[in-house]
Amino acid sequence: MRKQRSPLSAIFPLRTKDERVKGTVYLVGAGPGAADLLTLRAVRLLAEADIVFHDALVSAEILSLAARAEKIAVGKRCGRHSTAQRFINKRLADAAARHRVVVRLKGGDPMLFGRAHEEIAFLRKQRIRTEVVPGVTAALAASAELQVSLTQRGVSRSVLFATPRAAEGEPPSSWARAAAAADTAVLYMASGDAARVREELIGAGLRADTPVVVAEDVSLDCKTQYGVLSNLSQLVARCTGGPVLLLIGEVLAAISTKAVDISVDSRLYTA
Amino acid sequence: MRKQRSPLSAIFPLRTKDERVKGTVYLVGAGPGAADLLTLRAVRLLAEADIVFHDALVSAEILSLAARAEKIAVGKRCGRHSTAQRFINKRLADAAARHRVVVRLKGGDPMLFGRAHEEIAFLRKQRIRTEVVPGVTAALAASAELQVSLTQRGVSRSVLFATPRAAEGEPPSSWARAAAAADTAVLYMASGDAARVREELIGAGLRADTPVVVAEDVSLDCKTQYGVLSNLSQLVARCTGGPVLLLIGEVLAAISTKAVDISVDSRLYTA
Repeated sequence: MRKQRSPLSAIFPLRTKDERVKGTVYLVGAGPGAADLLTLRAVRLLAEADIVFHDALVSAEILSLAARAEKIAVGKRCGRHSTAQRFINKRLADAAARHRVVVRLKGGDPMLFGRAHEEIAFLRKQRIRTEVVPGVTAALAASAELQVSLTQRGVSRSVLFATPRAAEGEPPSSWARAAAAADTAVLYMASGDAARVREELIGAGLRADTPVVVAEDVSLDCKTQYGVLSNLSQLVARCTGGPVLLLIGEVLAAISTKAVDISVDSRLYTA
Repeated sequence: MRKQRSPLSAIFPLRTKDERVKGTVYLVGAGPGAADLLTLRAVRLLAEADIVFHDALVSAEILSLAARAEKIAVGKRCGRHSTAQRFINKRLADAAARHRVVVRLKGGDPMLFGRAHEEIAFLRKQRIRTEVVPGVTAALAASAELQVSLTQRGVSRSVLFATPRAAEGEPPSSWARAAAAADTAVLYMASGDAARVREELIGAGLRADTPVVVAEDVSLDCKTQYGVLSNLSQLVARCTGGPVLLLIGEVLAAISTKAVDISVDSRLYTA
């Protein structure tokens, strides 16, 4: 970890606004966890990076791909405060003044639930070049591991990705209504408050027996719990502390009602 | 292209049901188009593949990564018939009897709008091992190119991926209601019938001035049209025949109302 810059540097910036800065900030998706689910572009940028600012959840194996870079952990696992975000923004801009390739490495895809918008807006205002490298989002990795397609002909033509977690100062959201209107829903950062999530979803019109899968540590040591919406809290209670996704909808019916069969299938069919 | 097997082989299968077949069928996401948005895992499997069945949209550059594999184009760009799907299923199973590594390469992510479900169900019934390798879906690549996050604090906490295109024999869907309930919506395979899409979305409650971006050839030679829902048909009419995504929602407001500014920004900020 590097020491924090003095507040003076914010008041008296070292360069003028018009001066072109040296580097580009790449907001890069680190994918769902497994290192070989990084994209080629992400791997190349990590190899070229002078400095990498990464989320807490990015693994040591992935960080080792940034062989020559200084690595700086930023951000908490969830519920970062605005102050922390402003601090990250500032550090990215400072790094771009000193380095050619600055990588901001985010779990999953950078543009989903990652506050990339705030980082991009800040950097653009500073006239710092930014590029975004998309990644495999956790919902799709969970779908791949479950071998359950999130869309299915005749069953699901729409998939919602949402979070019930409101950031500090954020207005109440219609996430539950949106989840109930979609054929399939995948909830991120939702396991911390499973009882409320269940109540809001049922209140929005989802049936209590809607099939649910709780997936933890997707693409790594993935653990899955199968059930229905009414027992969501019990399913979530079996999780062991890793990042958790909730998958909800009729596409999961075949496996959520045949948990035993599927666990046999998994042993048979996966490497 | 290989010649079609005789119908006799379907009636008198060459192997018994219990016999373990030789190969594994990997359903692999080819990503949105650019070859360097493949995952490492996809690249490794292509290099090891004995045979690759690929969608029409997968580029020659990506296919060249499968250096030693026989390559077979299957599927139309959209609106494949059930018969064609059954034929693909059968060819995958046949290939797994003869080869160790069979790759079914699908544009984007295999589990979104790809009919992977039908292929997996068929292969499992035949007791053929299957694995799924997730990919970067086009919506996230579009978001990266636009540098607009699909979720934004205080603006969007939910993103819907949907298609208004019904497969043959499929019941009417509530896709438009789901899109209107979500904070952000991305529609796949929706440009062929823009007038109906606009009418259904407005009928479901979306405002006519909801910001829209039409993105064509995402991650390759990406072309974007900015506007609002009411002029969707005019925006789509400017497309040049490549695959098209429609992005809809308030997160796009900053760019859809400032098309000129942003085109300047793009030249300035992207390589």
